[in-house]
Amino acid sequence: MKFCSHCGSDAVTFSIPEGDDRPRHLCGGCGAIHYINPRVIVGTLPYLGDRVLLCKRAIEPRLGLWTLPAGFMENGETSEQGALRESWEEARANVRVDDLYTVYDIPHINQVYLIYRGELTDTNYGAGPESLEVDLFTEEAIPWDEIAFPIMRETLEHYFRDRRTASYPLHRGIIHRKF
Amino acid sequence: MKFCSHCGSDAVTFSIPEGDDRPRHLCGGCGAIHYINPRVIVGTLPYLGDRVLLCKRAIEPRLGLWTLPAGFMENGETSEQGALRESWEEARANVRVDDLYTVYDIPHINQVYLIYRGELTDTNYGAGPESLEVDLFTEEAIPWDEIAFPIMRETLEHYFRDRRTASYPLHRGIIHRKF
Repeated sequence: MKFCSHCGSDAVTFSIPEGDDRPRHLCGGCGAIHYINPRVIVGTLPYLGDRVLLCKRAIEPRLGLWTLPAGFMENGETSEQGALRESWEEARANVRVDDLYTVYDIPHINQVYLIYRGELTDTNYGAGPESLEVDLFTEEAIPWDEIAFPIMRETLEHYFRDRRTASYPLHRGIIHRKF
Repeated sequence: MKFCSHCGSDAVTFSIPEGDDRPRHLCGGCGAIHYINPRVIVGTLPYLGDRVLLCKRAIEPRLGLWTLPAGFMENGETSEQGALRESWEEARANVRVDDLYTVYDIPHINQVYLIYRGELTDTNYGAGPESLEVDLFTEEAIPWDEIAFPIMRETLEHYFRDRRTASYPLHRGIIHRKF
């Protein structure tokens, strides 16, 4: 943040406001404190029989790699609504949600992932503008070495493990920075 | 947003960027798009025996009403770390987390709540700067008509119901605007 979005001043510093314990974007002009907080990524794990739907990314980062449909949660929607919206936008997928399935923190990029598990209600899926290709994969057919994000890989691993017992508890996890 | 935080221009409109489907704060000067997304509130339900810890709020909104310790998740932390941090800041409570307990959406104020259930590890709790008072309450003693927020009331109701069977599954919910 170079300029204060309240008053337009360029006297914005990243420093600790009085009474606070961590640095914020602080305006020396009008005194406004600009908080920046983690963002929520919402998505689904859409399944049909023994197959799971994946999208091949048409955008960076990880262009050309495969992922579950997901994206930034928007204001004014619930996390489940956001997950369904992203599933439609990226994969033209219609999903009937069973339950919340994975909750992952990625603290080094300030993100929280909420992934819902749900069955496809039809097979009219297809690539939205942010996908090159969308397809259903069995566990064996999944391109395990071409999964875009560790959170998605772990969610898929949980799912295929849980399928063996047909029990799908919530899984929580943390993705740490790779050094 | 009155001024662009990238270039300082006052030509910021709330309009739909090309290729998008909803209005954003859009700078007519440098073209920057400023996204605003939901925020995550993290907290705990701290229990000891048959009692739950509540904080009497020393700040608005809902000054003087009771709540579970919770607050905005910060960048760089996990949701569980944030929940423990808030429990310390508001109630000087040391909590050993059992599991994630409630996930609530409040779409009209763009918030997602993640409340963790956990046992107090000691009784050295006390009011932090944002609390007037902190105390442990049995189900009967809880000031049910003086709970600050519906999400907290529902979380407490879930807890005392689940205690009867000693089974604490994740509960999801949505708080809608009251008309």
